[in-house]
Order: sequence, then structure tokens, then C-alpha cells
Amino acid sequence: MTSKKVSQVKDPELFKIYPKIKKTATVKPTLEGRTEKLNWKRNFKTNGKQKYLDFTILPHLMLSEKEAIQEAKRCLKCADAPCTKGCPVSIDIKAFIHCVSTRNFYGAAKHILSENPVGLSCGLVCPVSNLCQGNCNLNCELPINICGLQHFALDTFQKMKIRQIRDPCIDFENLPESYAAKIACIGCGPSSISTASFLARLGYKNITIFEKNSYPGGLSSTEIPSFRLPYEAVKWEVSLMQDLGVKVQYNTALGKNGMTLKKLKEDGYQTIFVGIGLPFPKKISIFNDLKIKNNFYTSKTFLPTVSKITKQIENENQLPKLNGHVLILGAGDTAIDCALTAFRCGAKRVSLCFRKSIHDMRAVEEELKSALEEGVELQPYITPKSINLDKSGKIVSCNFYRCDKDDQEKYYTDKTQEVTIKCKFIISAFGSQIFGEQELIDALDPLTFNQEGFANINCKTMQSNDEEWIFVGGDLAGGKMTVEAANDGKTAAWNIHCYIQKIYNNIISTNKEFKFPLFTTPVDLVDISNTIAGIKFVNPLGLASAPCSTSSSLIRRSFEAGWGFAVTKTFAKDRDTYPNISPRICSEIDENVGNNQKGFMNIELNSEKSMKYWLKAIQELKEDFPDRVVIASISAPFNKEDWIELALKSEKSGADAIELSMSCPHGLEELGMGTEIGAVPKLLCQVTKWVKAEVGIPVFVKLTPNVHDIRDLAKAALEGGADAITAIDTVRSMINIKFDGSGWPSVGKTEKRTIYGGLSGGYIKPLALKSISSINRKFPNLPILGVGGVDSGENALKYIMAGASALQVGSAIMNSDFTIINEMVLGLKCLLYMKSRSDLKEWEFQFPRMEEYPIKENVYTQSVPKFGKYLLQKIEKKTQIIINGNKDLIINKKEIKQSQAPIKIKELVGISNQKVVGWSDLSHKTSDHVVALIVDEENCLNCGKCYMSCTYDAIIFNEKTHIPLVTDDCTGCGLCQSVCPVIDCIKFVSRKIPYIIENGIDLEIQKKNNEIYEKEIRQN
Amino acid sequence: MTSKKVSQVKDPELFKIYPKIKKTATVKPTLEGRTEKLNWKRNFKTNGKQKYLDFTILPHLMLSEKEAIQEAKRCLKCADAPCTKGCPVSIDIKAFIHCVSTRNFYGAAKHILSENPVGLSCGLVCPVSNLCQGNCNLNCELPINICGLQHFALDTFQKMKIRQIRDPCIDFENLPESYAAKIACIGCGPSSISTASFLARLGYKNITIFEKNSYPGGLSSTEIPSFRLPYEAVKWEVSLMQDLGVKVQYNTALGKNGMTLKKLKEDGYQTIFVGIGLPFPKKISIFNDLKIKNNFYTSKTFLPTVSKITKQIENENQLPKLNGHVLILGAGDTAIDCALTAFRCGAKRVSLCFRKSIHDMRAVEEELKSALEEGVELQPYITPKSINLDKSGKIVSCNFYRCDKDDQEKYYTDKTQEVTIKCKFIISAFGSQIFGEQELIDALDPLTFNQEGFANINCKTMQSNDEEWIFVGGDLAGGKMTVEAANDGKTAAWNIHCYIQKIYNNIISTNKEFKFPLFTTPVDLVDISNTIAGIKFVNPLGLASAPCSTSSSLIRRSFEAGWGFAVTKTFAKDRDTYPNISPRICSEIDENVGNNQKGFMNIELNSEKSMKYWLKAIQELKEDFPDRVVIASISAPFNKEDWIELALKSEKSGADAIELSMSCPHGLEELGMGTEIGAVPKLLCQVTKWVKAEVGIPVFVKLTPNVHDIRDLAKAALEGGADAITAIDTVRSMINIKFDGSGWPSVGKTEKRTIYGGLSGGYIKPLALKSISSINRKFPNLPILGVGGVDSGENALKYIMAGASALQVGSAIMNSDFTIINEMVLGLKCLLYMKSRSDLKEWEFQFPRMEEYPIKENVYTQSVPKFGKYLLQKIEKKTQIIINGNKDLIINKKEIKQSQAPIKIKELVGISNQKVVGWSDLSHKTSDHVVALIVDEENCLNCGKCYMSCTYDAIIFNEKTHIPLVTDDCTGCGLCQSVCPVIDCIKFVSRKIPYIIENGIDLEIQKKNNEIYEKEIRQN
Repeated sequence: MTSKKVSQVKDPELFKIYPKIKKTATVKPTLEGRTEKLNWKRNFKTNGKQKYLDFTILPHLMLSEKEAIQEAKRCLKCADAPCTKGCPVSIDIKAFIHCVSTRNFYGAAKHILSENPVGLSCGLVCPVSNLCQGNCNLNCELPINICGLQHFALDTFQKMKIRQIRDPCIDFENLPESYAAKIACIGCGPSSISTASFLARLGYKNITIFEKNSYPGGLSSTEIPSFRLPYEAVKWEVSLMQDLGVKVQYNTALGKNGMTLKKLKEDGYQTIFVGIGLPFPKKISIFNDLKIKNNFYTSKTFLPTVSKITKQIENENQLPKLNGHVLILGAGDTAIDCALTAFRCGAKRVSLCFRKSIHDMRAVEEELKSALEEGVELQPYITPKSINLDKSGKIVSCNFYRCDKDDQEKYYTDKTQEVTIKCKFIISAFGSQIFGEQELIDALDPLTFNQEGFANINCKTMQSNDEEWIFVGGDLAGGKMTVEAANDGKTAAWNIHCYIQKIYNNIISTNKEFKFPLFTTPVDLVDISNTIAGIKFVNPLGLASAPCSTSSSLIRRSFEAGWGFAVTKTFAKDRDTYPNISPRICSEIDENVGNNQKGFMNIELNSEKSMKYWLKAIQELKEDFPDRVVIASISAPFNKEDWIELALKSEKSGADAIELSMSCPHGLEELGMGTEIGAVPKLLCQVTKWVKAEVGIPVFVKLTPNVHDIRDLAKAALEGGADAITAIDTVRSMINIKFDGSGWPSVGKTEKRTIYGGLSGGYIKPLALKSISSINRKFPNLPILGVGGVDSGENALKYIMAGASALQVGSAIMNSDFTIINEMVLGLKCLLYMKSRSDLKEWEFQFPRMEEYPIKENVYTQSVPKFGKYLLQKIEKKTQIIINGNKDLIINKKEIKQSQAPIKIKELVGISNQKVVGWSDLSHKTSDHVVALIVDEENCLNCGKCYMSCTYDAIIFNEKTHIPLVTDDCTGCGLCQSVCPVIDCIKFVSRKIPYIIENGIDLEIQKKNNEIYEKEIRQN
Repeated sequence: MTSKKVSQVKDPELFKIYPKIKKTATVKPTLEGRTEKLNWKRNFKTNGKQKYLDFTILPHLMLSEKEAIQEAKRCLKCADAPCTKGCPVSIDIKAFIHCVSTRNFYGAAKHILSENPVGLSCGLVCPVSNLCQGNCNLNCELPINICGLQHFALDTFQKMKIRQIRDPCIDFENLPESYAAKIACIGCGPSSISTASFLARLGYKNITIFEKNSYPGGLSSTEIPSFRLPYEAVKWEVSLMQDLGVKVQYNTALGKNGMTLKKLKEDGYQTIFVGIGLPFPKKISIFNDLKIKNNFYTSKTFLPTVSKITKQIENENQLPKLNGHVLILGAGDTAIDCALTAFRCGAKRVSLCFRKSIHDMRAVEEELKSALEEGVELQPYITPKSINLDKSGKIVSCNFYRCDKDDQEKYYTDKTQEVTIKCKFIISAFGSQIFGEQELIDALDPLTFNQEGFANINCKTMQSNDEEWIFVGGDLAGGKMTVEAANDGKTAAWNIHCYIQKIYNNIISTNKEFKFPLFTTPVDLVDISNTIAGIKFVNPLGLASAPCSTSSSLIRRSFEAGWGFAVTKTFAKDRDTYPNISPRICSEIDENVGNNQKGFMNIELNSEKSMKYWLKAIQELKEDFPDRVVIASISAPFNKEDWIELALKSEKSGADAIELSMSCPHGLEELGMGTEIGAVPKLLCQVTKWVKAEVGIPVFVKLTPNVHDIRDLAKAALEGGADAITAIDTVRSMINIKFDGSGWPSVGKTEKRTIYGGLSGGYIKPLALKSISSINRKFPNLPILGVGGVDSGENALKYIMAGASALQVGSAIMNSDFTIINEMVLGLKCLLYMKSRSDLKEWEFQFPRMEEYPIKENVYTQSVPKFGKYLLQKIEKKTQIIINGNKDLIINKKEIKQSQAPIKIKELVGISNQKVVGWSDLSHKTSDHVVALIVDEENCLNCGKCYMSCTYDAIIFNEKTHIPLVTDDCTGCGLCQSVCPVIDCIKFVSRKIPYIIENGIDLEIQKKNNEIYEKEIRQN
């Protein structure tokens, strides 16, 4: 290690694979390359055969944290969003995705569950390419993975263990007796769960679901395999329904023990919802005599057996043991479920046999894709004719007729052509029907069926055409998927509500828009109001004086959306009102095209509207929205009379407070306004004094960050008598320069001139947090309205913890629209609620986090990469572990802990500042020093970014496995963690050896010291 | 329009579809939803039938600007990147993608073309899932679209019309006579183009390609359809080759007119490369008698005919006219090309018929996907037996044997089972072979062939096993794709070089690493050196004093990579050297996970290394890298002796200059250093004076932006005698707060304390540009070293135009690695070159831009959206336009304009500042005011972000077509353009009516005024 040169690279071996610039082209014969590349292949197709006994969820259904957030950020949040128009249950998709993009999973869950009580199941099984996602405006590039986001959001929400409650808008205790009407739902599948949930939300107290099995879920539990829909999801959806008092009676089947629709009616059930699905397989006569012993299954004998075992619902049975070539007859989603399950039960080869072409299969795109990925074979254009058995009665092959399309593209069966395919097992999956047992049909009387075998109903109301007290939904009503069943249930619930209320002669709410209350939880009850300078803010979120408050009609629309307050666009006396030039707002487009701009730069001046306009506007707004706070933002040169006139008139017009605008860093200073006054503590103090002396309402002063120490301005404002300050205004900047040298925005067709502008949004968030924190530390009693980069409920809380009592929003609205207030309110409420739940305090905002320093053991195999030749090795080990049983895979379920009363905003203001100290007060104890530890080889992407970033040569990157290893040379700087593309993949742990500064000279001495310390530590 | 309330929404109709927050769940019957969603479907599959006569490039092959940049930014730029290991020609893929992500298409092109002279073709036809992309570490999410990026980069570079030159490292004029050896390549396809290009780059002067056709390209021109590979791409690749003097002799075929390998040898060609491909189709005896008149084609009779017409190579022939059901026999890429082409020639239905299962098709994933998307049908497990004709000799059907796999998964033909498929046309695509004409085989003598029909060669050298003067590459050598042909050509070129030099007894360069010179153009000759304070910088890009200069071995590695200069990590006297706490570097991880961080915040102090270490390091670095500039960054409290000691010792150690570090905004100020001195002009001036009085080398002063006006600090530095200033240091910030209220970074396991840190990188770029610009405007003769957010060649130029003479880089290296210098150098050179080309001056950096205010006419149809029911309507019109002929589709080719001498950096320093003025000097002329115009309905995503962002109610969003319309109410603020997700989709135009401020009161008067003005304008 002793080298003559201090600048020499200590271990050149370490940099053998560090990136280098090519000085010359490479010569590598084609054949050599063909072999080498296989070692690095990341897209090996794993064949279904390799999935033997692996019933864990299909990886492509699951998004990681990073994927979810980044995917949600891609969403354009379109106007009149077409995705929602493709959703059968009408989820406000862009709203829930906006919540995900701001890491507000509670908000997302509320949006989803409000429209769909089985939203978690649907997030796994919805054929979205034919629904929401098919309508996504980004189909021209890559549509948003809406299904994955829905699943991720609800999966995270589920972990919060929050119960459903009834919306307080329902006066539950005082509902009329009609709400005690007995309601029966039959079959505890998605449609009944939906019907019962919505009726319960409306206030119905006496709802019972009758389920033939000893467990809930219907088709979701019994037929959809565990690798597509885990049983836990279904149980959770049922438990949310039960939170509202819905009863479920198990082991009660229609047609058994005298249970019939008529009997239920006699027993006092005023209405009955039938959601029993289609329990019997469609049959073809050639299979009539075939049984399991012949190696013949139908989807109805195959899938439920497997599901019950693999979902740990029932354990008596044994998994079907398949082998050899398995033919699946059918081309729908169920057929594909059978195919994938067949591999997991031992099939060596699986073929889907069907009449039509691959393009006319009933299965949706997503399902077909998983089938092809696992190596399921396709045998199109054939239809079964007969089956051949060997002497022992086992299937040996199947005969088919050949099919084709005629010139009119109609399919026909050509009985002159036959095809025989050898096989060992056959599973038929031709779909389901209601006809199978006469006693069921009898029990359904008086319900009748149409030609297609579906119940005779009115499709607009789901009400039976036979008897008005019967409603039907789901497969029995012609529904084609879980989400349609959920929607049928919802539609039925509404019409059951109308039907029952009509019986009791009640009139349903005259508000035509009002249908069902939204999904509600204790989170919604959290109070996020706050009082600043004696003014009550219903919520602490309002419009900043910015383009979004350009006109009073904008403020009106913002109040309608729910914003708690608004600062007007700054107005001045007409003499000081100047026309704007154009263009005047821009973004760093080149860096981040289009939506989700990090921020904006503007060179806009005060409002172009007259003082008269604004005074009238304030008056109107206060009249129409008395509970909202309107703050008049005023500006004038350093001229007492002007300030007083503006302030007094504002007060008279009804403004709740005045914001003195002396902080604009562009244009106005030339006109004697803006930072010309506001950056000078004395002047700022004087203006504040002038105004304070004359008006009775609170006065806020907006501060510019374009000074050495913003606390000097806060002090001046305080001395001037300010009731609160607003921090921070925009930061003086030049956002871009064009190739021709002109600045941006560029004014004048030929002149192309520019001025420096004010930067806003995410760019200045770190500056705003610092400014707010430093002011709050120094003047803890001076309320702060935080502004500059607030764009989500989570960020709002950060600003509050830094010291803000309310938040002004500008750029985030410019990036989106006024509805973002909903996310912000829900996000803030949820985080306050979480702070009152001891079991959620350890979360990182709405993300569940691992323990502080967990060395997560790789579940399956350690240090085996998941690419190239290593992959099959890994899969083999995994299967072995599954066969031997792995207890680690069983989920530990904790009970929900009781909540304390949610914390109030004012209790949180500035709490971060207790932790902000001077450098010398930071811990310098070596025991507090950390080193980086790469914890998660399973999630590690093998990219080596940690290795490349390390400036201490402390990370070894394995040349073959591409797995990084942090050595004791790590000084814990944290850079590797900052650039790692996987959240939580690199964790910090405490140092095991002491931290000795390597001062670069006398290395031998250092080494010796290290050894001594190390020995000491070992002895302790 | 007159309303009582000024705050009332003027036109509520406008906001009917503006986003609203749902207060209640929706009830919409399933059936209703099923119908509605179809109106909005964005993923309608267009069937191949609808592609009739449409030979334009397949849309999924083309990326938009936005897609390309965003896709490139997703790339992790992995260490030891596995993508390159999957590339047959070994392109440094992460390097070229890094160039694309920084909008440096020249850099990207240089990387690609250096390894692959037919890179543009490969960017369209490479089966990347089986090559580079299959090895991408992001396969776990979504692999990078490497092919698309390669095509986009080269397509853009192509538009620059830059010629290839020989690398100046080749002393062309003085090469030995061996370089004049006559070399022949036969067949002007990818392998010969590659061979000839690489040999020409080495300096060979006498290379001739003999091509049998009258046009170049081989298979790329004749077989690959125009919708996959336009002829223009091939012509461009050939023209680059010809730039180096390679001759192409057309209409010269082997075996014709006495041309044979032996004859060429006799004619003096010392070596011959045979790259003629496999010109004849593989035949099956049953088709022996079938001809086009029977409606039978082979791929070799079908594809070239179509290609020659649709690529406008030859126009004599007529397109084949197909109809009805067309069977394609085969399962390779060529079969799929035939299938897609068949649709375009009139087929109503196209089926691929093949022996194996869909999983064992020879065609690559990408090709199969396009086939399925266009509705090509699959007929697996059949092999042709015989063909049935009608009386007129036309095909009516084809008989096949059925095939299957046995238990060992081997395919066999079951002659007991037959299948007949009706059809009107058959195209066989069973692959190609060399055997077809005896005269060709004779002409190839002495070349022999192996069992597979490929030339007998040594696969490591591509040299014939028969005769050492013959080399072979491409399909004839067993190559399977264009890129393998290109690599064979490269491998052959190197071995031809070795062979020829051996003949002449020359020894090839002893540098084993050196193979071929890189792709070179006049851009590479641009001089980007600069002189500051008398010091020559070979390039103006160096390391900032930052984590990337933590140790001198890092600086050594940076110099090896090519950085022009380095500022050491700041060192102090040992007394003032403090140990760092940990962690101390962090990113706003939550906002942008992992790679490509916008910037970092650090709380790191000075170097932990001793002064002694750094002095020795400087000495070593100057000894080993005499042409690089080493700047010593020193720090001390306000203490004359310390500053002088540090400065003098640095000078003595050989430092080229000294940077006085008084700008660190965290920690150090508590210790009497950093901003404690540097934010106070007097103190800063004094320290500068102390040092200047003692040392002879230039002194630079680094400035903090954490002041009201950084120009005060610049002034103080100038007064102190500073030779240059460095601007800006980091911005004091608090980057994040955790849910528990602790700041980030959080120091101490239990204490979790924090301090404010310094923000760097992209966040502060707008502040840095403003600071540099404002200092340069005031003190134009004070050189500035720009720092803070420089991360690309393009950005470097922006900083230069703002006033910087050199650039320091920190965060960008932390985000990546030292090799980014290559992109920056190439990017800067290219932009300087472009400034000297009058035809490229109008580009926006390396992006071609449309004319200033172009109202791009929608090529096909106007105002018809591309979704739902509108789509078919659109396609129909398009086909009609194609049938009628559309001249707009023909590309206008301009000649390359002569370059002037490239501009020098010093000529550009600060040129932007001519355009920076005061607000009152901006044009206020209404004729200079602009309104937004949405120009590009074809590219508009219909997202309505413009509509939602407009604060002037000036954009109407059509409820049915989702097409926006900007009205005259537009004030040209520019916000809509800032949030539009499509680059250049919204453009500004001059106002047609004057800009009247709507002051919000007396609207009627305004309206009248407007009308008067409008009339005036019309009269003029």
C-alpha cells in the first residue's frame, strides 16, 4: 500500500471495469460476441415449467415504489380524462394517479374505493387494455400502467390497516325506518360485496350476504389463481364491507336446505340481490363420460381445487398432479388461468386449443401475454371432435375438426378435415352457465333467463323483469369481468335504494348529482384547520399571488374546488399598473418536457386589473365564500399615501388580511417597487409600520429570498408590526439561453431581449424550507405563510414542520389544475392521522419502511444474480425452497392499533427545528458515523452506480456477478445512496471499526492505528 | 358579457369539462359504459388491410424528440454496461445514450458510427431484444429502447449534413505504399460498406466495391421493405463511405462479363472481400413449376419488386396486386416482411404457415409483434405438401402435413395427418442460399462452401480457408443480421489490414489496444481551448472543488479521461482541518429516485487530507500532466499569515493558479472560514489583496450566491486584484425533512440532528446563469469560471454565452462518472462548428427547428382526432391521399453549405448579455406581443393541459374531439407552452388584433376599442 505517489490510484484492479472513453474502435469477431452476450442476458424467458409449485404472484403485476412513483408522474392528468370514460365503475383515475405521484396512497385509495369496493382485486385482474388504459392519451408512446398503480396504491393503503366508517353526511342514528329494511345478497362475490358496501354506505343497517361456501370471494377466491389474485386481497375487501355492519352467512346455498328466493321473501327480506355467478361449466357432449380419473378436468373441477390449497383456504385436498402434454380447450381468460396453473401442477407442455385465430381469442391482451411469456403453445383453428383413451382409461390424444374463416370472415367448421394431437391431460374451459342443477333453477324462481342464459333484467337498473324485488348482477347478468360485476352491484345498490325508499314513500334527495357517499375513514375526520393572526383557515392551503390568481373568477373557481384561502394577484394604484409584455412565463422545457415541470420562471409584473376591479372582487368573494380567507396583495412605490390608500380600501372591501408585496425580483424594482423596497430591512419595516398604523386587519409581509440572510427581513417585518410573514417569493434567475444567444423568455420579434426573472416551484423548495426553518428558529412566534415549491400534502407537512402555519401554492396549480387541493387536503389529513397511530409513526410519510438497519436476508438465494447463466441456478434453488416449505413467505398479520386523537397542525409547526443545530453541535462520535451497506441484492439492479460514484474507492463491483460490496474504507458520505436507483437498496449501518481520517500522508501509521482499534472493538 | 359580478366566470360553458372533485360516487350501468368507452379508445388496432399502399415507416420505429430525450434519461449508464456486451459491433451504448440525454446527437453519432458504419440501418432493423436491449439492467422494469435512440440520434445527425473525414492521427499524405494496395469488395451491402469504411479510415486509398445492381445497399435496399428501412438511410451510409474515397462500380456482377475472383486477382487486387449475401431462395421441389402467373412468389421475387418501386429506385415495374387470403410459408423475419408487404399490396387476409410452435419461430420478438399488431394470422405446426390450382392455373389452396413435437421436444412431420388451407396467393420465404446459378459458383472459385452452404472461412478473421487473399462476411459467412454483417466487415477489414501490411513487411502498431481510428468529421477539428489569466486550458472543462476532487487519485483519473483542469478539494492548514461527520451528501431522493438527480445537497467541509498531501499531489499531477491546469483551492480563517503560507506553498508545488475558497455556506462559517469571510465584500477584498501581493500565479476567487447582489462580491474581488472569479458556490438550503421531523442528512443514530447544507447541480443552474450573466455585464473584463449545474456540452455553451470562460463540474460527475467529459467536449465542439454553418444556425442547439412561425398543415386530415370512431375515418382519408399521390411526402434535399472557420470560445463569452436589458427596455409594442397558436394537431396528444393551464379563459377544449383552440383572448403569457407535453406543438404567432389590457372594469368600453383597432388593422 505504500506508494511513492500520493496521487497514484491505490488499487488499479478496482478500476478495471470503471467506464473508459474509447479511443479506438473494437474488433471482436461475430461468433465470439454471440457467446459472450448470453452471460449477460437480462431477458431470459422463464418457461412455465420452471414455475413448478410456484404460486406466488406474477412479478409483472407488482410495481416497486420507484416504478409506481415514476409511472404516476408520467401521467399527463388530462382534461376530461378519457381513461375514466373507459372505467366501468367510473373511478376518477387521473385524481388517484395524481395522489400516487405525490405519494398519497390514502388519497388514491379513497378515490378508488369510493367507486369500487373491490378495487384491490380489480387492480390485479382488470383487463385494462380494453378499459381505462386503452383510452390513455399516452397510447401513442406507452400508456400509463393504471392497473399496476391501482394495485400499488391499495396494497400500500391496506398495510395502513385503516377501517371504513360511514360518511358523517349520513345521519346514521336518525335515519327513517326504511333503512332498517332487510336486504339479502346471494353469493359473496364481487357483485354482492359491491351492492352491500354501497347500501351500507347509504345507511342500510340490515344487510345479509348468503354464501354457499365457508369463505367469501366467489370466483375471486375459487377460480382466479393465487398468482393473479391472492386470497388476502379478497378478505381485506370483505373486512372493509363488514366494517359497516354487513353480515355474511356462510355455508348457505340457494337450493339447499329449503333456501329459495321465495323463502327469503317470506322471511321478510324486502329485496334480494342475486350475485351467484355462473356455477356450472358449459358442456360438450363428447366429454360427458370423462372424469378426473381419465385425466380430464373442467375449469370448474381444476381451478377451485388448486386455489383452495394454494390460497390456504382449505387444506384437505391434494394438488392435481399433471405431467406431459396438457391440452386446454378454450381461448378465454379462464383457459389461460388453467394453462398457467397446469405448469405449476407439473405439466411439461401446455397447449391452448381453440376454433378461431389468435386475433379472435376471447382472452384479453394482458392474459395472452402472460401465457406466451410462460411458453404456453397455441393451437388455433381446431375444435374438439372426440377423445382417445388407452386401455387403462387415460387420455392419449384428442381429435379435432379443423376450422377456418370464409371470405366474409365468418368462422366455419370443416368436418372433412381432422387433426389429432397427442396429450396426457385435457382441461376444458369453454365458459360457465347457470344450468347444471335443477334445484338451483327452482330456487331462483321466479327469476327467468334469456336466450343467452342470463337473467332477464333491465340492464339500466339491474332489476328483474320478472319481479321488482329481485335484482341481479355479475356473470349471471351478463357481466364479463370483476369490475363489471362491481359496477352491476353499484348500479343495483342505487336502484335497490330507490325501490326501498319508494316502498316507504320516501323521496330521494332532490340533489340529482348526489348518489353514494364516498369511501370514508377516520382520516377524513381529521381537523386541518388552523388559526393565524386570529383568522381561522378551514384548511391551511391557498392560492399564492401568482398567475393562478390572475383574475377573481379564478379565485372563485379555486374556492369552489375547496382551497382554504387566496391571496389576490398583487394590485397597485392605477398609476402604478403596467401592461405586461409577452411572453412572460416559461419553463426549462429542454430539461423536462411538458407536464410536471420542476418549476417556472416568470417576468410578469403586478396584476393588469385595476384597483377598482380587485376591491369589488374581494367584496364579492367574501360575500359568496364567507368561510374562506381572502388576502389582498398590494404594492406601491415607497410612498406612504399609496400604501395606506390601498390598505384601507382593501380592508373596507372585506379582505381578511393584507399581504404587502415588496418581494418581486424582476421589473418592479425599476419602477420603485418590489425588492427595491423589500430587500432593504429599513424600508420594509417602514412600509409595514405605515400600514399597521392605519388598518385593523392583520398585515402579512412577503419576503424575498434574494438577500444574504432572510432573517434580517423577518426581523424588520416584526419590528414594523407584521402579524405574519410570507416566505419566500421567487428567486432571481435566468432559466435558459437559446442557441442564438437570446435569453428566454425572448421579447420582441427581432429584438429578442430578456430580463432576469423569478424562479418558482420545485427548484426553490430547498431554499424555501431553509428560509422558513431559519426564520421560525429565530422568531418562533412570528407566523409564516410558506410558499415556494409546495405541491402535495406531504410537502405541505414538511413546510409546516419547518415552521409554516399555512401554505401558498402557485406553480403546482400551473402544472395541473385547481383539483390538486383534494390530494393536498387528504394527504395532510392522512399524515396527521398517522402521527397519532403508534404503529404508523415509523413509516416514512405514507411509505411503509423497513426497520432502521435491517439486513434483509435474500429470500431465495444469496449473491446469485438474476441474469445470464445464473438465472436458472436461482430458479432451481427457489423451487427447492418452495418444495421444502418456506415459512418466511407467510405474512405476519398484526392487529390495528387504537388511534389517539389526531395531532393539530399548530402542534407541528416548526418541530423540525429542534433538530437543526450548528455544525459543531452535530455528533462527531465515531460510533455515530455510518457506513453504507448494500442490503438488498434481490432488488439490486446490478448497475454499479454506487461503485462509480464512490470517491473513496470503497466499493468493489464484482466483474462477473455485477454485485457490489462496500468495504471498510467507506466513510459514510452518502453519495452512493443518493444515486442508487432503487429505494432503500443501500442502507446505512453503524461503523464496526472506528473512523480514522485518512489524511493522505503516513498511511502506514494510520493502518496500524486502525488495527489497534479494530482489536479493541472485537474484545468488547 | 356584462355581468354584475366581476368575479363571475365569464363563460361557464368553457369549464363544463374542466376537472372537478367528485363529491359522490357515480352510477352508470355497465352496458352504457361499454358503449361510451369506444368513443375514446386510443389503442384501436389498425389492421394490415388498412395499410393498403401505405409504405411509410412503421410508427413504432420512430421516436419523437421528447420520447428520445426522456428515454435516454432513463438509462442508468451502468458500470461495465451489459448492453454493450450484447452488441455485435461493440458500440459504447451507454456513452451514446448519455449523449442523447444531453441532446448531443453529434456525440451519439460519433460513438455509433465509429463502431458501425451502417448504424442508421441497424437503428431500424436490429433485433435488439436478442442483442443489447436483452442485456439491459432495466429489463426488470422496461428496458431502454436502444434501437429507437440509435435511430433518432443518427437521423438527427444525418440532417446536419456533415461529411466524414479521416482521423488526423492517420498521416494520410505520408502513408507507405502498402496503403495504395488495390482492394476489392464484392456486393455493396452492409458487410462491404463496413469493410471499405474501416479500411478507408485506416488510410487505404484504393478500395473499389463492385455491385451487380445499379444502386447500393444489397439486401437493405432490395429486400427490407421501405416501411422498415427507407432507401435514404442506405444512401447516406454509402455517401459517408464515399467521403473517404471509396469507389463503387455498379452493374458489375460476379459471373457476368467474365468477372471472377481469379480475374480480379489477376487485375491486381491484392485482396478481395466477398460480401454478396445469399442471392437465391431456398427451394422446395413442390414449387418448382410455380410462377408469378400462378399467383406464386418467393420472397426473392416478391420483396425486391415492391422495394424498388416503393423506394423509388426503379419505376418500370408494377406493384404486385394481391387479394384474398395470402399464405406466407416460413417463420423468419423475411416471412414477416412478406406478410406486412402483402397487406400493403392488397391482401385481405395474411397467414404465416410454419412447422413449429409460435415460441420456436425464427423471427425475432420485435418483428413478430409488428406482424401480430397488423393482424397477420399464425398457422403453426404445418409444413407444405402440395398446391392446388384451378383451371386457369391460379392457386386455390395448399395442402400441408401436420407437425408436432415428440416427448423430447423434437419436431417431426406426421404424414398421416393433412390440412388444407384455401388461399389465393402463396409467397414462400424459407430463407436464402448461395446456390442458384452455376456461373456464380464458378466465379467464386477458389472459394468453397461448408455443409450449411456458407463459405469455408476462419470465423475469427473472416479469411477464407481456401485462399488467404479472400475474405468473406455477412450472410455468406453465416451472419444472421445486418449488424453481424457490419461486424464481419469490420473484423475482415482488420485482418485484411494485417494481411496487406504483412505482404509489405510492415509491422502493425505496437499499441495492442489500437485498432481502427474513430469516425471523424470536421467537428473533431474544432479548437475549444481557451486562455484565462494567461493560462492555457486545452479544453474549458474541469473538476470543481467538490466530492469528485476528494483525492488526488481522483484528479489523476479525471485527467486520464480528458478533463482540461482540476480544482483541488479545498485544503487548509492542518490546524484548520476538521474531520467530516457522516452522512453528509444527499439528494432529494423522494422526488426523483436514483440516477439523474437534479442535484445534491452536502454538508461536507474542506478536505480531510493534510496540506502536505495536497502539495505533494499538485506537484505529481503537474509532472505527469503538464498540459493540464491544476488549481489549488485553499481556505483559512481571516488571518493573513495562513492565507499567504497556503498560497506560497501551493505556488511552489507547481499549481497553475490558486482559488481562494471563502464561499462554503455551511459549517465553515462557524469556524471563521467560508461565507463568514466571503459574503462580506471588505473581507473578501482584503484576503485577495494579501494573496495577490505575495504570489506570482493567477488568483481566482470563488463567490457565494447567498448574498443580495453577487456583483458586490465580484467588485470586491476585482478590487483585491483577482485574476478571475469562480461563480457560483452552493446555495444554502434544507433539502428535505423526514416524517419524524428530522432533517436530512440526519446525523447521530439517536440525536438525528442536521444543519443547512449547500445545494448544487441542476437546481441552481438558473441562479448560476443569472449570477454569471450579471457579473459579466458589469465587469466584462473579469474572467469567470462558471460552476453550478454544468452537465453537458450544450449547457457549457449556455454558461459561456452568459459570460463564463471555463466551466467547473461537480454534481454531473457525481451523477455519473468521469467519462462525461467526452460528451461535453464533443457537444461543445459540435455547437461551435454549427455556429460557423449558416444552414445550421437556425437550429436550436443540436435540434433541427421548424421555421419561426410555421403553421404546419396537417399532412393527412385536419381536425380529425386519432382515437375512437374518428380513427378509421382518418385512415380512409390517408389511403385516399396516397392513392391520389401526395407530393408533400417527398423530401427536399439540400446540399451541404460550406463551413466558415469555427468560432472560438472567447468570441462567445457573454454574447447573451447584449440581449439582457431592464424591464422598461423590453419591447412593449403590441405588434411584438404574441399569442399562442397550437400548430400541430397531428402531434397534439389531446391532453388539454393547455386548456387547464390558461388563466385567461382563452383556450377552448372541444368536448368531442379533444382538440384545443386558442382564441383572441390569449395574452401570450406562455404558460400553456410551458406545460405542453409535446415539443413545438404550441407555437407563438404575432397578434392579429392589438393587445388591450383587460382591466376588469368597463368591459364594454374595452370591447369597443378592440373593434375599432381590429378594423384599422384590416384596412392596413
